[in-house]
Amino acid sequence: MYTHNGDTRQHEDDIAAFNKQNDADIRPVSLDLLHEESSNSAVKHVLESTSGKLDVVIHNAGHMNYGPAESFTAEQYMRLYDVNVVGAHRLNQAVLPHMRKQRSGHLIWISSSSVYGGKSPILGAYFAAKAAMDSLAQTYARELNPWGIETKIVVPGVFTKGTNHFEDTMQPGLPDVAKEYEQGPTKGVGEQTMAGTAGVVPEDAERSLVADVLVARTEVEKEVQLLIGLEQISTEG
Amino acid sequence: MYTHNGDTRQHEDDIAAFNKQNDADIRPVSLDLLHEESSNSAVKHVLESTSGKLDVVIHNAGHMNYGPAESFTAEQYMRLYDVNVVGAHRLNQAVLPHMRKQRSGHLIWISSSSVYGGKSPILGAYFAAKAAMDSLAQTYARELNPWGIETKIVVPGVFTKGTNHFEDTMQPGLPDVAKEYEQGPTKGVGEQTMAGTAGVVPEDAERSLVADVLVARTEVEKEVQLLIGLEQISTEG
Repeated sequence: MYTHNGDTRQHEDDIAAFNKQNDADIRPVSLDLLHEESSNSAVKHVLESTSGKLDVVIHNAGHMNYGPAESFTAEQYMRLYDVNVVGAHRLNQAVLPHMRKQRSGHLIWISSSSVYGGKSPILGAYFAAKAAMDSLAQTYARELNPWGIETKIVVPGVFTKGTNHFEDTMQPGLPDVAKEYEQGPTKGVGEQTMAGTAGVVPEDAERSLVADVLVARTEVEKEVQLLIGLEQISTEG
Repeated sequence: MYTHNGDTRQHEDDIAAFNKQNDADIRPVSLDLLHEESSNSAVKHVLESTSGKLDVVIHNAGHMNYGPAESFTAEQYMRLYDVNVVGAHRLNQAVLPHMRKQRSGHLIWISSSSVYGGKSPILGAYFAAKAAMDSLAQTYARELNPWGIETKIVVPGVFTKGTNHFEDTMQPGLPDVAKEYEQGPTKGVGEQTMAGTAGVVPEDAERSLVADVLVARTEVEKEVQLLIGLEQISTEG
């Protein structure tokens, strides 16, 4: 699990409550995707506690930005790449030696509809990172398919509620530059973009829909998946 | 100018010789795109020596990798993002305040055909960075168009000769992992990919063709360019 502030206790409490209510056995494992040792020890812990059974990895960690592209520092661009792309790569490096050895496994990458459509303004640093993640997923798919490891790229569409994805956006490190955009010919473009984004979210958009799709797709028959190889899934329509 | 080893003297000598032979006045300016101060002082130098005339920026710096995605360290991924994407962003931050003030300017981004077609294996870290750069170019285009600043994304196709792009690729930081791919079911995939790549390069592919297109496209009438806004140019066919 990843949270931007590093505190996963709330998630762990939520999962414990869910387990109790549903007689379930979901076991949360905390890890810091920005650090190789943390990713490695989390995967080691899973393998030890399941007698070497680790079949599916879902790359879901993401962090967004909000503001003109020019108003974010170089360090902020690097940080968003680290969280959105290199974190998934670190987890791959921890889990793939195991999956390659067993000649099976399943990587699911949560991509972004921005990669498959027009890029709105204001979210540039995040969209760039997601485009990179999607591209890397495609390369990994081609290199892992011969080892019996499946890849799916999931494009859930926009969910403005149910996660802290929109509330917890990265703000411009250079607010003076952002101010120039807001006082110049680009005045209002941020609000317009977010109003447009909110307008495309259906009223019944529920994040559990995405979870249902993920569960269903990992249960598809093996031989069918091998034929598909690389697949893009959309819950948008 | 960017070179991976930081030594631009050869390029400067080449340009001096070209100027002499062609009675031209091309003035090279060295800068290190990985450092903000260097980018800023290079742009300041250009503005001072041209009485504030800086119309076109071409984002051409790129560094490739060669090897399975899993065999590169997290630090190598970050480095390739820094060179291929954040370097262009640093240069934008140096030049855009000037272009926004004069309400005109022209950004040309050299993208990759991998962004607009299938991703071959073996070049994953580079392709990811180019996908990010292309995405960032699209965001910048939308945010800069209202300021009178043009954007073009150029996809020249593959040029295996005439630059050090292919000779100077980043090698796996984890050669033992690369070896496992070469000894497993992915054996030969690197050679196959490079043979396929070499096969699509026309015999008369000459890097000056790209330069000719760049010059021609920056001379298009202003009102036509404003209509186009964002344009992708291909010299492939």
